[in-house]
Amino acid sequence: MKVDLNADMGESFGSWVMGQDADVLEVITSANVACGFHAGDPEVMARTMGLAKARGVGVGAHPGYADLQGFGRRRMHLPEKALRSLVQYQLGAALGMAKAVGAEVRHLKLHGALANMCAEDASMAEACYGAALEVAPEIIVMVLAATQQQRVMERLGGFWAGEIFADRAYNADATLVDRSLPGAVIHDPDHAASRIVKMVQAGAILPETGDAIPSPVDTICLHGDGATALQIARQVRAALEAAGITVEKFEGRRGAFT
Amino acid sequence: MKVDLNADMGESFGSWVMGQDADVLEVITSANVACGFHAGDPEVMARTMGLAKARGVGVGAHPGYADLQGFGRRRMHLPEKALRSLVQYQLGAALGMAKAVGAEVRHLKLHGALANMCAEDASMAEACYGAALEVAPEIIVMVLAATQQQRVMERLGGFWAGEIFADRAYNADATLVDRSLPGAVIHDPDHAASRIVKMVQAGAILPETGDAIPSPVDTICLHGDGATALQIARQVRAALEAAGITVEKFEGRRGAFT
Amino acid sequence: MKVDLNADMGESFGSWVMGQDADVLEVITSANVACGFHAGDPEVMARTMGLAKARGVGVGAHPGYADLQGFGRRRMHLPEKALRSLVQYQLGAALGMAKAVGAEVRHLKLHGALANMCAEDASMAEACYGAALEVAPEIIVMVLAATQQQRVMERLGGFWAGEIFADRAYNADATLVDRSLPGAVIHDPDHAASRIVKMVQAGAILPETGDAIPSPVDTICLHGDGATALQIARQVRAALEAAGITVEKFEGRRGAFT
Amino acid sequence: MKVDLNADMGESFGSWVMGQDADVLEVITSANVACGFHAGDPEVMARTMGLAKARGVGVGAHPGYADLQGFGRRRMHLPEKALRSLVQYQLGAALGMAKAVGAEVRHLKLHGALANMCAEDASMAEACYGAALEVAPEIIVMVLAATQQQRVMERLGGFWAGEIFADRAYNADATLVDRSLPGAVIHDPDHAASRIVKMVQAGAILPETGDAIPSPVDTICLHGDGATALQIARQVRAALEAAGITVEKFEGRRGAFT
Repeated sequence: MKVDLNADMGESFGSWVMGQDADVLEVITSANVACGFHAGDPEVMARTMGLAKARGVGVGAHPGYADLQGFGRRRMHLPEKALRSLVQYQLGAALGMAKAVGAEVRHLKLHGALANMCAEDASMAEACYGAALEVAPEIIVMVLAATQQQRVMERLGGFWAGEIFADRAYNADATLVDRSLPGAVIHDPDHAASRIVKMVQAGAILPETGDAIPSPVDTICLHGDGATALQIARQVRAALEAAGITVEKFEGRRGAFT
Repeated sequence: MKVDLNADMGESFGSWVMGQDADVLEVITSANVACGFHAGDPEVMARTMGLAKARGVGVGAHPGYADLQGFGRRRMHLPEKALRSLVQYQLGAALGMAKAVGAEVRHLKLHGALANMCAEDASMAEACYGAALEVAPEIIVMVLAATQQQRVMERLGGFWAGEIFADRAYNADATLVDRSLPGAVIHDPDHAASRIVKMVQAGAILPETGDAIPSPVDTICLHGDGATALQIARQVRAALEAAGITVEKFEGRRGAFT
Repeated sequence: MKVDLNADMGESFGSWVMGQDADVLEVITSANVACGFHAGDPEVMARTMGLAKARGVGVGAHPGYADLQGFGRRRMHLPEKALRSLVQYQLGAALGMAKAVGAEVRHLKLHGALANMCAEDASMAEACYGAALEVAPEIIVMVLAATQQQRVMERLGGFWAGEIFADRAYNADATLVDRSLPGAVIHDPDHAASRIVKMVQAGAILPETGDAIPSPVDTICLHGDGATALQIARQVRAALEAAGITVEKFEGRRGAFT
Repeated sequence: MKVDLNADMGESFGSWVMGQDADVLEVITSANVACGFHAGDPEVMARTMGLAKARGVGVGAHPGYADLQGFGRRRMHLPEKALRSLVQYQLGAALGMAKAVGAEVRHLKLHGALANMCAEDASMAEACYGAALEVAPEIIVMVLAATQQQRVMERLGGFWAGEIFADRAYNADATLVDRSLPGAVIHDPDHAASRIVKMVQAGAILPETGDAIPSPVDTICLHGDGATALQIARQVRAALEAAGITVEKFEGRRGAFT
């Protein structure tokens, strides 16, 4: 039994620093590196990928909307061609920067509002993932488990890995509990760690109320900003290892999850 | 005897159209595609590369300063790391976009102020070209003949091709006649065409006054904006062919020009 | 009987030219000057405002989303504070540029997707217009007649002017006929001109089918790109003047339209 | 005897936080607010100006190059018209944002590379300051004492105030000691405070070696990033007040310093 741990990395921009990348890289096995559109810049990318490679952490491209001020979190409505080119450009840039530092881009994960919209809208997900696979056919697409992102990758035929959140509560239908509701975000490292261990062991999303939902649990999304986030990340990893679960880079799966 | 004809392409941006790409693509053999920092955007890149591929025109990455408003023509002073990442990012993006449309990025040419500064400053040229070769070791670097750009590529050991201008007069030391002086820019298609034929035949830059300067004449820089530019481009090609010179994509050379 | 004619101006950006501003300025009485976020840049603004002032054309601020690549036409979802600051910043910049060339910013008109969203959503319109009035309490807000834009200005108590389109057909409920339907866009200068004269005379929007909708008809939106647009603009003005309607800058109205 | 204390403020951008504005605002009397080109964004400007106003701190516009990634610290070469519009646009935006929060823009200070270039090059300074005075004729221009910035304002006839640095050593010719030399930057709060008191009392720049250089000492530049900077700021203010020097907003002077 094994699982991957991922976090967003390289979100600094120019003179502005964000995140505790060096610390988080000690915990995770896959790094989602911002590609300069919502965060990051070419220098930050080079530095981040170099660090990840040095630690043996898998490097992923993490494209988002072209909206630095909004950090890629504001929904934008783009025509399909624009969406496709947006993803291909950022993925290409990530491949280039990785090559320069001797690293390899193993995976792709969409960021922020782009990711959320693709979780809901299969045609958007298909545009983004189809475009990415044209640039890097062997790349592993990290999908939000039990969303349209997963459905689309099951159909497209490329490699994919299912992701669940360490610090977000789930509804009975596998959607996330709305952030405005109490308990939506899990702040207690012990609680976060123990439920993640259970989900990995069960191969299922375990909602706060309701039945287990069998689901691909290939990677756990951790956060790197704030003292609590780092503590949760460390505790999750420690608890997984204590339970005998191997923490290592995912390999990706193909086709439908059953 | 053969020579390549190149022009800048894909300089439209969003809703703003620039150049007559479709017409120019009928004349040239290598297209320098803007990479989104000084001009172009991901969609324009995809479209331009697709057109170039369809016409059998070689695709090149054409990185410039991150200065859309100044079209990459305003000098900026960047530290070496920033320069290196600037070039690698844009080259990577170009490689990705090309892959997506089934094209290949054969060459790299620096744009505008970045090119001019690298023509004068060997350490800047070395930073930019060294960085590019880390991303694409087999790429052909298009250099301004008889400048520091050429010197640096002769030393670095990668493939390169020497470029001269169809519409600019040269001084006796192989530098360009200052634009503020009369005759600096050649507007007469007949004149432009006949001197280019002579330079290709001589394997030399022929200054307005002074002796021939033996030089690599692998590619001729044409322009695509304005009716005259297009007319010059067509006449240059016609004159070359009439003189029995084959117009085709360059292959690149290696090491010192002698 | 009188009416104002307006058009978007100053939509060039850096080296990219858009529109036929000099020609259009001969026809219109109010110019909506792009503020550098969706189009225009500080130099273009200065030049455009200087031209408008020289022709006696009223200068307006024309703020849009921060999306040059999408020309402000792609919907973005911003929190209220961000919306407010977006409008205030661009309006302030326009006031500064106008002061520098001795012009005055008389009016404000929202651009593109920002305008469309505010036509549908009263709370967005209130955020944008309320913010603008904090910066320039006496400014005349140009609203799309019979939309939430108008409703909000009727409530807010500032000056406003109602706008209708010269080249777009209206539905029976005063909304625009969808662009995908035949006849939605009017290309015939004669038709455009004659219906505008009728609407001004009627003080009403005249839908293709259905009854006249009494409406403020203070200004007519013209377009400046393409030969047809300019021809329509000229013909509309000529027809209005032939019908004895004075074409001049609007003064703005206050409170509810009845 | 009195003096002003100034610091750069509002340098956060979108999700990226920079500086300790709330703390620094307790110490200073004039805040140089970034205008969104090298740092800051419309929301940050509104928030920062609101805070400054609430503390009775004078608000200034702090325009810089359009280079977020380089934080306005990379030299760019712009034609005069572009420089003029760059300053006018940002100043106008600052005036607008200030109006919206009920504050007043009292002063203008150039940022980073733009400031450094204008300290050396009188024609650049004249372009920037002349442009600013067209937008706000009564504004107080904060100049680096004993540089071309000061010379130009002495000639232009507008209000100005001379600035010296709390934490930088001066050469005998009133230029700053190069940052690469030992002692160039002063890290010891006691040392910084005592020399500033002496300079204010002397009405002169006191170089490390060499004679006192009579100079306008209207405002002291403090920094707000890092624990030391804040400590220096507090100690400078305390030492000034202990020496009986009033710390308050400058009023500006006019004409030549004698």
